[in-house]
Amino acid sequence: MTASTPDISLSASLICCDLCNIEAELRNLESAGVDYLHVDLIDGHFSPSLPMGVEVVQQARKKTALPFDVHLMVENNEFFIEEMLTVGVQRVCFHYESARHVDRLLCLIRDGGAKAGVALMPTTPFSVLEYCVDRLDFVLLMLINPGYAGRKGENQVPYALRRVADCRRFLAERGLDIPIEVDGRVAFGNIPDLIAAGATDLVAGSSSAFHKGGTLAENIARMRALIAQAGP
Amino acid sequence: MTASTPDISLSASLICCDLCNIEAELRNLESAGVDYLHVDLIDGHFSPSLPMGVEVVQQARKKTALPFDVHLMVENNEFFIEEMLTVGVQRVCFHYESARHVDRLLCLIRDGGAKAGVALMPTTPFSVLEYCVDRLDFVLLMLINPGYAGRKGENQVPYALRRVADCRRFLAERGLDIPIEVDGRVAFGNIPDLIAAGATDLVAGSSSAFHKGGTLAENIARMRALIAQAGP
Amino acid sequence: MTASTPDISLSASLICCDLCNIEAELRNLESAGVDYLHVDLIDGHFSPSLPMGVEVVQQARKKTALPFDVHLMVENNEFFIEEMLTVGVQRVCFHYESARHVDRLLCLIRDGGAKAGVALMPTTPFSVLEYCVDRLDFVLLMLINPGYAGRKGENQVPYALRRVADCRRFLAERGLDIPIEVDGRVAFGNIPDLIAAGATDLVAGSSSAFHKGGTLAENIARMRALIAQAGP
Amino acid sequence: MTASTPDISLSASLICCDLCNIEAELRNLESAGVDYLHVDLIDGHFSPSLPMGVEVVQQARKKTALPFDVHLMVENNEFFIEEMLTVGVQRVCFHYESARHVDRLLCLIRDGGAKAGVALMPTTPFSVLEYCVDRLDFVLLMLINPGYAGRKGENQVPYALRRVADCRRFLAERGLDIPIEVDGRVAFGNIPDLIAAGATDLVAGSSSAFHKGGTLAENIARMRALIAQAGP
Amino acid sequence: MTASTPDISLSASLICCDLCNIEAELRNLESAGVDYLHVDLIDGHFSPSLPMGVEVVQQARKKTALPFDVHLMVENNEFFIEEMLTVGVQRVCFHYESARHVDRLLCLIRDGGAKAGVALMPTTPFSVLEYCVDRLDFVLLMLINPGYAGRKGENQVPYALRRVADCRRFLAERGLDIPIEVDGRVAFGNIPDLIAAGATDLVAGSSSAFHKGGTLAENIARMRALIAQAGP
Amino acid sequence: MTASTPDISLSASLICCDLCNIEAELRNLESAGVDYLHVDLIDGHFSPSLPMGVEVVQQARKKTALPFDVHLMVENNEFFIEEMLTVGVQRVCFHYESARHVDRLLCLIRDGGAKAGVALMPTTPFSVLEYCVDRLDFVLLMLINPGYAGRKGENQVPYALRRVADCRRFLAERGLDIPIEVDGRVAFGNIPDLIAAGATDLVAGSSSAFHKGGTLAENIARMRALIAQAGP
Repeated sequence: MTASTPDISLSASLICCDLCNIEAELRNLESAGVDYLHVDLIDGHFSPSLPMGVEVVQQARKKTALPFDVHLMVENNEFFIEEMLTVGVQRVCFHYESARHVDRLLCLIRDGGAKAGVALMPTTPFSVLEYCVDRLDFVLLMLINPGYAGRKGENQVPYALRRVADCRRFLAERGLDIPIEVDGRVAFGNIPDLIAAGATDLVAGSSSAFHKGGTLAENIARMRALIAQAGP
Repeated sequence: MTASTPDISLSASLICCDLCNIEAELRNLESAGVDYLHVDLIDGHFSPSLPMGVEVVQQARKKTALPFDVHLMVENNEFFIEEMLTVGVQRVCFHYESARHVDRLLCLIRDGGAKAGVALMPTTPFSVLEYCVDRLDFVLLMLINPGYAGRKGENQVPYALRRVADCRRFLAERGLDIPIEVDGRVAFGNIPDLIAAGATDLVAGSSSAFHKGGTLAENIARMRALIAQAGP
Repeated sequence: MTASTPDISLSASLICCDLCNIEAELRNLESAGVDYLHVDLIDGHFSPSLPMGVEVVQQARKKTALPFDVHLMVENNEFFIEEMLTVGVQRVCFHYESARHVDRLLCLIRDGGAKAGVALMPTTPFSVLEYCVDRLDFVLLMLINPGYAGRKGENQVPYALRRVADCRRFLAERGLDIPIEVDGRVAFGNIPDLIAAGATDLVAGSSSAFHKGGTLAENIARMRALIAQAGP
Repeated sequence: MTASTPDISLSASLICCDLCNIEAELRNLESAGVDYLHVDLIDGHFSPSLPMGVEVVQQARKKTALPFDVHLMVENNEFFIEEMLTVGVQRVCFHYESARHVDRLLCLIRDGGAKAGVALMPTTPFSVLEYCVDRLDFVLLMLINPGYAGRKGENQVPYALRRVADCRRFLAERGLDIPIEVDGRVAFGNIPDLIAAGATDLVAGSSSAFHKGGTLAENIARMRALIAQAGP
Repeated sequence: MTASTPDISLSASLICCDLCNIEAELRNLESAGVDYLHVDLIDGHFSPSLPMGVEVVQQARKKTALPFDVHLMVENNEFFIEEMLTVGVQRVCFHYESARHVDRLLCLIRDGGAKAGVALMPTTPFSVLEYCVDRLDFVLLMLINPGYAGRKGENQVPYALRRVADCRRFLAERGLDIPIEVDGRVAFGNIPDLIAAGATDLVAGSSSAFHKGGTLAENIARMRALIAQAGP
Repeated sequence: MTASTPDISLSASLICCDLCNIEAELRNLESAGVDYLHVDLIDGHFSPSLPMGVEVVQQARKKTALPFDVHLMVENNEFFIEEMLTVGVQRVCFHYESARHVDRLLCLIRDGGAKAGVALMPTTPFSVLEYCVDRLDFVLLMLINPGYAGRKGENQVPYALRRVADCRRFLAERGLDIPIEVDGRVAFGNIPDLIAAGATDLVAGSSSAFHKGGTLAENIARMRALIAQAGP
C-alpha cells in the first residue's frame, strides 16, 4: 500500500467558495493549484439540505478548465447523472444508499465519459461494494453525515480513520488500488493520518482550503506540504 | 381596475444572472433599479429541474439590500419556507399544487415577517383561492410550465392574458386589489397587455431584463417605459 | 334552514381525554351525555402528528356503547377505513385532500355499515363536493390546520363562520340538509354563531367540553344550554 | 348540441379481449367495425391494479391499423406518454388527479402527434378543466372507480348521466364541441341515455361489445343500432 | 459471555396493557417490578399497523417514573426521535431498514440524553452494524415480523435463537458487551434459551408478562424465576 | 457440488413470446418441453418499464398446465404476491432491494402454496440472505439490470459467472443445495459456463429459446443438448 499508493489529489468544494463571485474563486482555485472542483448536489430529499443547483454548475463549467468532481446526494440519481453528463464533468459519484440500480448507474456514468464512483455513508459496510468495486474508478467515503454539515456543526465521525483503513484493506484484498476520496472535515490536523490510512483524494472545504486562518493559496500550500510529508 | 391599480414592480430573476458573478450582477440590478430579486427554488421533484439552492440565496442575501421575492417549486414547502425565513427574505410564495396545508403555510410565512403568496400552475382554477385570497399579499401566475422553461424552450401559454384578466376579476369581485405577479416569458412585446390585463409584478427574465438585445440597464429602462405607457 | 335544521350533536374528542384513564373518561362522557366519541387518527404523514392509534380505538370500542365518530387524517385512507370498520364505528370521514378515489372510499364506508363523510381543510373550495355531496351522510369542516392544533396553539381560522355558512348554502342550493360537523376550537364563545351559520355537529375539545374552567359535566351542560338558545 | 353533435365512436377495450389471442381478437374487432382499440394502462400505484403493459400494446400495434385510444391511470404520466408516443398511438389521455403539469403533458402528447385528452374521476369537478379545455381534443369521464372494475363488481356511479350532461353543458358554455368519451359499464341499456346526455365516444367493454350474450359482431351491431336511434 | 453477561431486564409492552386503564396498569407494572415500559410506535407506513401514538406516550410519561424504552417502526425517524426526546424517554431505537442517516440519528438520540439502539428485522445481517456498533447502547432484535404480530398470529421466526447467538458473537468479537433486547413472542418456554443465547433485555408481551394464564404479578415473578435459573 | 447438483430446468420468458398469440405460444412451449413459464412483472416504479400485467398472467394461467415462475420487480410486493397466489402460480420471487419485510413475504408465498425465492440485483452481496436462505426454495440472480433489458440492449454483467459461483459457494457453505435461477442474456454460448458455475434454472429469453436463429423447438433442443453436456 506504500509505494503503489496513487497520487494524492485535492478537490476543492464549490460549496465553500464565495458563491456570489464564483468566477473569481475559480481563478483563485486555478492559481492555488487544486486538482478538482468538488460539486455537492443535494436535493433536499436525500438530506434536508439543497445548497446549490445544476444551473450554477453549468455556468461554472464554462468558466474554468478544472476537472469537476460531482458528489450526488439525491434520490433520482439517473436524472442528475444525465444532467451532469450534459454539463460535462470528469467524475460523478452517487450514494449506494439511494441507488437501486447500482450497476446501471455506473454504466451510465462511464458511457457518458466520466469516471464513476460510489459514495458511502459513514456506517455502510464495504460488503455492498463486493460486486461493483472492480468497475469503480474511485470510492467516496463520507466522514460526516451528508447534508447536515454546515448547519449543525457536526464533527467528523470518530471512526473516520478506521473507515479509510478498512476501505483501503478491502480494496487491497481484491488487488485494487483505486483512489479513496474522503469528504467531511478534512483538516490540516488529520490529513497526514487520513493519507496514512489510505485516502488519496481530499475534499478540501472549510477545515482546510477554505480555512479562515489563511488565504486559499496559503491553505492549499499547507495541504500540499502535509501531503508531501505523508508521501512515499 | 384603473386608478386603483397597484404600482407596477419589476422582480429580476436571479436564475438569469451570470451565476458566477452574482455580486457584480447584484450591483447591476441595483443600478438598473429593479424592485425585487426573484429567486426560483425547485427541488427536482416538483419539476425535473434543480437550478440553484439555498446556499446561493443565503450568500446573495448578504451582498445586497434588494428585497428578495422567493418562488418555491418544491414538495416540502414547510422546510423551504423555514430556510427562506432564516435567510431573511421579503416575499415567499409556494404552489397550491404541492401544498396540503395552505392556511398553515401562509401563517408560517407571515409570522416569519415576509409577505405571503400562492403560486398557481397555468391550468389551476382560481376557485382554489376562495378561502385564502383575503389573507394573501399577492398571487403568482405561472405563464409557462415551471421547471421546463430553460431547457425545453417552451412558449408562454396562449391563454396567459386570459389568466391574468380572470385573476384580476376574481380579486376585484372580492373587493381585493392585491398584486398579481406574472412569471414566464414576460417580454417587451407583451408587457403592455399583461399590465392592461391586471398584472402588477413582472418577473423579468431572459425575455426582458436579461434580453440579449440590450444591456441590463437598457432593458430595464425599456421595461419602465412600457410600464409608464401602460400606467394610469 | 331554520325549522328543518338537523338536531345539534356533541362529539367529544377522545384525544382530549385523560388517555391513561380512558375507561373512566368514557363513563364521564356517558354521564355527561355526549352523542359521539370523536376519534382523530393522524398517521404522521398527512400532518406532522401521530396522537394515538388503532389499538386504543379498538379497546375503547369494547368499553362503551357510545357511537364512534372517526376523523381520518391519513394518506392510506383505504387501510384505515377497513381498520375502523373492523373495530366497529358509526361514522367515518376522510380528507378530500388525500383521497384520489373519493367515490370508492365513500362506498367502502357505507358498505361497511357506517355513515360516510368527507373532511375538508380550511381553504378547500366546496366545489370538490359537487358530485359526491348527495351521497354524503355529513361534511366535516376543519376550522384549524389539522395536526398542528395541540402543539402550535394555532387559532381557529378567521373565516370559520364564513366556511360554515357557505357550506350550509352549498348544501341548501342542492336541496340537502345533512349535518355539518365543525372541528377545531369550538368554544363556548363561538357555539351560538357556529350553529347560526349552519353547524350541527360540534367536536368538543379543549375549548369546550374539556375546558379547564369546569368539569366535563358542567361544560357539557353549558354547551347544551348554548345549543338550546341557538335552537329553533 | 343536436345537429352539430360529433359522430359517435366505439372504442373497444383491449382489456376485455382474450389476451392470449390478441391477434385473432384484433381481426374480430376490425371485422366488427370498431373505431378505436381502447388501451387501459394502470401502474398498480394510481389504483391497485396492473392489468397489462406496454409490451402488449407495442406488439398489438404491429398487428392492426386500428387507431389506439390510450387511457393512462398512472403516477408518472410523462414516462408513459413517451412510451405510448414511441409505440405510435392516436389518442392519449391522462388523469387530472395524478397530473401536476397538466399543460405540459397536453403539449407533450400533441407535439408527439396524438390527440390529447384529460380523464376525470367520477367526483372531480369540471372547473379543473377551465384553462385547458380549449386545448383538449377530448374529455374522458370515468363512470366507475378506475382500477377496481373487474375485481370488485362495482356499478356505474348513479350520477353518471348527470356527469355527462354537465360536462356537455360545460363545453357548450365555452363554445366547444369536443368528444366526451365515457368509460365504465357502458351497456346496451344505457347507451341511448349516455348519448342523449352528450357522450360521443363509448368505451365498449364487458357490458356491451364483449357481453356474454352475443358474439362481438352481434354486440357491435346492437351498439350501432342503438347509436343510430340516438342519432340526430 | 457468562460471568460478564449484563443483567437481565424486563421491558413490559405498553401495547399489551389495558389501554383504557393505563394509569392502573402502570401501577401494576410498578408493583410487579418491571424495568422498562416498552413503547412501540408504528406509523402505518413502515408496517401496516398504527397501534398507538405520541399523545398516549406523553400522558403515560406523567403518570410513572418507569424508564421508557421506545421502539420506532416508522419512516420519518428524525421526527419521532425528536417527539420522544421531548416527551422524555430513556431509550430509543429505530430500524436500520428505514434509516438512511444512521450515525446522525444515533447522535440525535444521545445528544437528547437517551440511550440509543438500532433495531433489526429478522433477516437483516449484522454486518450493517459494523461501523456503529461501538456507539450503540443496545441492539434490538425483532423475532417476529414487526407490525403484523397481533393481527396475523405469526410465530417467532424459527431462527430466533441463532439470531441472538450470532448477535452476541458479533458483539463479543468486537469486545463489546452491550445489551441485546429481544422482541416478539418472548415466552416462558423460550426465555432460558434466549438468555443462554445472549439476550439480556426481554420485551414482555402477551406470551409472558401479559399471558392469560396468570396475573401480571405472577407472570413477572415467573419470568424472574426463569431469569434467575438462567443467570450466572 | 457435482453429483448432488439439482436438475437443470428451463423457464421460458412469457415476455419474449408473441404477446398477440399467447395461446399458440403456450402450445409451442409445451411441445418444445420447457419446465416453467417465466413471468416478469415490473410496475414502472421499481424500474422504468411496465411490460405486461396481471390480467395477461391470469388468462395465460387458464390456457396451460405449465408451472408459472413469477419474478416480481415491484415496490408493493405484498399486493402482487397476493395477486399471483390468486392466479395460481408455482413459484414467486421478489427483490430483496424493494422488500422491507423479507421474512413475512416468504411466509406469504409459502402459505399460499407456492415456492418462494429472493431475487438479487447484480451488485447485491449474498450476506443479505444469511437469515432467510434456509427458508428459500430458490435464489434468482439478475445478470443484467432489470427493467432496462429490451430497451437499452445492455449486456450481461461481466461478473455474471462469478456471481453464480459465489452464490453456489454461499449455499454450499451452509449445507444448502437449492436451485439458482439465472436471468438475463442466458445464451447458447454461456449456458455451459453458467451451469458449471452452479446455475440450475435458466431463464430462456431472446438469447436462447427465442433466438432468431432457430425455431423455439430447435432452440430448446439446443439448450437441452448443452445442458446434457454440462451435466454430471
